[in-house]
Amino acid sequence: METEFLAWLAERLPSHPCLRIGPGDDAAVFRLAKSADCVVTTDLLTDGVDFELSKLADPRRIGHKALAVNLSDLAAMAAKPLAVVISLALPRANALPIAQSLYEGLLPLAARFQTAIAGGDTNTWDGPLAISVTAFGETTDRGPLLRSGAQPGDAILVTGQFGGSILGRHLDVEPRVAEALQLHANYTLHAGIDVSDGLSLDLSRMLTASNCGATLDATAIPIASAAHELARQKPASGTSLEHAFGDGEDFELILAVPSAEAERLLRDQPLAGVKLSQIGNFTTEPGLRMIDEQGRVTPLVAKGYLH
Amino acid sequence: METEFLAWLAERLPSHPCLRIGPGDDAAVFRLAKSADCVVTTDLLTDGVDFELSKLADPRRIGHKALAVNLSDLAAMAAKPLAVVISLALPRANALPIAQSLYEGLLPLAARFQTAIAGGDTNTWDGPLAISVTAFGETTDRGPLLRSGAQPGDAILVTGQFGGSILGRHLDVEPRVAEALQLHANYTLHAGIDVSDGLSLDLSRMLTASNCGATLDATAIPIASAAHELARQKPASGTSLEHAFGDGEDFELILAVPSAEAERLLRDQPLAGVKLSQIGNFTTEPGLRMIDEQGRVTPLVAKGYLH
Repeated sequence: METEFLAWLAERLPSHPCLRIGPGDDAAVFRLAKSADCVVTTDLLTDGVDFELSKLADPRRIGHKALAVNLSDLAAMAAKPLAVVISLALPRANALPIAQSLYEGLLPLAARFQTAIAGGDTNTWDGPLAISVTAFGETTDRGPLLRSGAQPGDAILVTGQFGGSILGRHLDVEPRVAEALQLHANYTLHAGIDVSDGLSLDLSRMLTASNCGATLDATAIPIASAAHELARQKPASGTSLEHAFGDGEDFELILAVPSAEAERLLRDQPLAGVKLSQIGNFTTEPGLRMIDEQGRVTPLVAKGYLH
Repeated sequence: METEFLAWLAERLPSHPCLRIGPGDDAAVFRLAKSADCVVTTDLLTDGVDFELSKLADPRRIGHKALAVNLSDLAAMAAKPLAVVISLALPRANALPIAQSLYEGLLPLAARFQTAIAGGDTNTWDGPLAISVTAFGETTDRGPLLRSGAQPGDAILVTGQFGGSILGRHLDVEPRVAEALQLHANYTLHAGIDVSDGLSLDLSRMLTASNCGATLDATAIPIASAAHELARQKPASGTSLEHAFGDGEDFELILAVPSAEAERLLRDQPLAGVKLSQIGNFTTEPGLRMIDEQGRVTPLVAKGYLH
């Protein structure tokens, strides 16, 4: 299977300036920009957890998602993507067409973000589908953006909208790579994280790493239409705001930005097609709080997907 | 599960000079030596294919193997290991003790080869165990050792012995990292590959990449005692020589070495505890041939594990 698949793949792999030795040897060799550090992240997606192969009309979306969530992690570090390696554990039935579909889903995304396919390992087995992607990028002149740099007084900015990703958006992830690089190059950012497990949960991780607290403005949370739809369809599942806080898999960025810089950013709205919103502020007081429509401040319990 | 596991793991992860940002952020950041290139490889090991979890008295050996086979790929490139990321798909039953065993198996090996654990992704699911490791290394001043550099007239040298790894050695892989670095630094090597799928099959890959052929001396193949044992136990499975040629998972090195340099190497035997043997020569004539005890030359069909 692997031999046949690799022949199919070889015709579809673009060359890449960073790749000195591409797939085909025992390992790939790539060159970083001078004085850049290497940034690396990995995510393993499994059938029944991150997707349901049997229910998907188009398995290419799995390939897209597997690459996109890794690129989103590079975006959270404001790192420039360079290359990925991809390992597949394929069910024996239909292994080849599944592998091809996965790559057909991820190759266009890799091309769009100038990310080389540096190698991989393609296996068949008696288990369900699992796909592991390791992405690596390089830091820019401004270094990596960490989740630990938020300071009391900083504004909490987010890209895009939150909630209801399970209705489909979780498969069609649009990693905020270009946005992160653009903002990191042109504005002062103190910290960044991407929202994989839930807006409130990932924000709480930033608070822990940065040793500060936050107060959110309930009326300022950009709620995705899918969150409203979920709340309508299943009222017992929570309000649309609760979906926005806890659903996860939005793969938007949370940024800590000095307040004057945040004003400039919100005025500029420099991102093409992606709105920046301020949802609150970092505070000296630890913990996560929310101000509701009536101006009442209540503790907010961080919710989201715990692995 | 992941939260509890990460707390357990955090106490066991050594710091590493190359790691600027370790596990805990969206991605890790590591620094290469000045002017070094980054070398990357990945291997996914799955239950029922690369190991049998239910039959193993000591699942730590799976963790050891998963890291070792990746380090072996870095060795084949004569690259210095720096860091790995590790993704686990764990069966829900006993996920935590399995994860701990895997790490108990790989952490001592990582420490021995000064390899940082830069990050990972730990998941539970309804499927069997799968473990994906991606290893990063850096090239030395002499650059990477490729499989494509063998030249007609070069000697074919190998480390160690071959065959019968299924009797146990395939789990206790000893990656030839130090050996590859020592040889690459002190001798002229034209090409290298590690034997994962079979001595004859991996050699044939080197021939294809190097666009040459090879003639092997049947009497010079270092046959492991396990290969003799297998041939005795199951005569129908082939001779010990056939086991040496085709069993795979030996994780020894095949090296292409200019003939005068090979003489020096064989005289020096510079590797502590690992014997170097010449098993034949590269030839202009394409294809793989064997000279048997009686001096007859016959074509040798490359055999091994095809994925």
